[in-house]
Amino acid sequence: MGKLLIVGTVAFDAIETPFGKTDKILGGAATYIGLSASHFGVESGIISVVGGDFPKEYLEMLNKKNIDTSGVEIIKDGKTFFWSGKYHNDLNFRDTLITELNVLADFNPVVPENFKDCDFLMLGNLHPAVQMSVIKQIPKRPKLVVLDTMNFWMDNTLDELMDVIKKTDVIAINDEEARQLSGEYSLVKAAQVIQKMGPKYVIIKKGEHGALLFNKGKVFFAPALPLEEVFDPTGAGDTFAGGFIGYLASTHDISFENMKRAVIYGSNLASFSVEKFGTERMESLSHQEIQDRLQQFKELTQFEIKLK
Amino acid sequence: MGKLLIVGTVAFDAIETPFGKTDKILGGAATYIGLSASHFGVESGIISVVGGDFPKEYLEMLNKKNIDTSGVEIIKDGKTFFWSGKYHNDLNFRDTLITELNVLADFNPVVPENFKDCDFLMLGNLHPAVQMSVIKQIPKRPKLVVLDTMNFWMDNTLDELMDVIKKTDVIAINDEEARQLSGEYSLVKAAQVIQKMGPKYVIIKKGEHGALLFNKGKVFFAPALPLEEVFDPTGAGDTFAGGFIGYLASTHDISFENMKRAVIYGSNLASFSVEKFGTERMESLSHQEIQDRLQQFKELTQFEIKLK
Repeated sequence: MGKLLIVGTVAFDAIETPFGKTDKILGGAATYIGLSASHFGVESGIISVVGGDFPKEYLEMLNKKNIDTSGVEIIKDGKTFFWSGKYHNDLNFRDTLITELNVLADFNPVVPENFKDCDFLMLGNLHPAVQMSVIKQIPKRPKLVVLDTMNFWMDNTLDELMDVIKKTDVIAINDEEARQLSGEYSLVKAAQVIQKMGPKYVIIKKGEHGALLFNKGKVFFAPALPLEEVFDPTGAGDTFAGGFIGYLASTHDISFENMKRAVIYGSNLASFSVEKFGTERMESLSHQEIQDRLQQFKELTQFEIKLK
Repeated sequence: MGKLLIVGTVAFDAIETPFGKTDKILGGAATYIGLSASHFGVESGIISVVGGDFPKEYLEMLNKKNIDTSGVEIIKDGKTFFWSGKYHNDLNFRDTLITELNVLADFNPVVPENFKDCDFLMLGNLHPAVQMSVIKQIPKRPKLVVLDTMNFWMDNTLDELMDVIKKTDVIAINDEEARQLSGEYSLVKAAQVIQKMGPKYVIIKKGEHGALLFNKGKVFFAPALPLEEVFDPTGAGDTFAGGFIGYLASTHDISFENMKRAVIYGSNLASFSVEKFGTERMESLSHQEIQDRLQQFKELTQFEIKLK
């Protein structure tokens, strides 16, 4: 069983979808990643920053899931990062209504002593300078470093981002970001170009169209589970990443064969996350539900054809 | 081994993609379906109509592939259906430049005597009145009737189309068409609604994002093979349908398990079709190439996870 360290946002989200809207609820990349990974029973810790307005109950809830929050700095006279967004009828599209960086603007991450020997490091979507600071604080390189990022950092801090990319084993980005980063339209070619930048493994997330895992000449595809209703897509990508690295950490096996299983688990967890607002479904999810859904993934994708 | 009857267009296409352009070349739904199905060694026949300008060599090429063209009427003083289109850099989008119906405008299909006992009937995308005429000429209902159609007929001849849909076992349409036909955005719900219209099996084609096969509570997903280069998507949907029904006809097994294999074969054949302009790749394709690619589909999708 590996020790997992996660750096990312812990935040307030206010979400509006065609099915309803929320006030400020618990959100943030590290929150979704940590909750998702917690279903694999790994020892994990979050590095983040929140304001004095952040409810202690949220941190206690994470602690109950065996997520160490000693690396979550609390700035008493500051305000927690807040994001508000509204989804279109086509949930693939959303408008950001509010982004208040607040305490995140001056975030100076500190790796707790008891996580300096982490085996698995998940760099959630954040300023690449913050991601690099965490990498540099860990004396012995972790077994696996996984990076999530987005087009905003490609547009504004590309040099710093490229330095981080060089130091990662796995990059997980969406199809448009892969195209932007590589300059290639074909995702196969994009993955080839990105592998030359550093990461040996490239995961391209296509939302409701599933995710592709590339390594050298190999490619594996994890579909998204076709759902009757997608209620709230917020955090689905982070939940996917959390399921991916959580499964790898729990099995301590980073072979390509095991990464296949890990992307299936990522897709599995993400399919639950979108069923309710925010982190609600992730908090209540049981081991049996995950196993049942795994059976659905098998039925969805597995076939028998004899080669002639 | 089942006998397969295909009704659909046999046409001239002129295609422009970011990678080049063609003069008038062989095209048409029935052409692509027939060529794709021919790789399974089935006895098949095409019902269509062409003009006096249609080269005999094209018909001879189809005959060499064991495709009966006695049902292809030749109107000596007429001109063959002609379509011209230009693809965007994103090959998912194209503009139709020219549509000349020509002899297709008065197409009156006649089922040849030797195909009145067909076991498998493929209704290619055409006016629903033409599709219905073919259904009515077959005295004993075939083992399986597969329908392709498009939004144009939903917009303009919905009542006639619904009558055809009622009489089919499998409908194969794309995601936008499934949404339009059902009034449901969720593809899972769309498939449920469409099954109530008649077809027990619904195939929703998502182009580069693969295809979903629905039957009652069951769903199976066949991904598209991630390709370095898509050269020309023309006919990919028809090639998919041809591979699907060709495999079913060759195995004479219409169980859900076998339909899973059939959509994988459909996706397999389509992945070749897009590698070159028009029907070129379909004409040169070997059995061994199909088997090798099947192995790639296995590597792309198959995983081992023990349920706990």
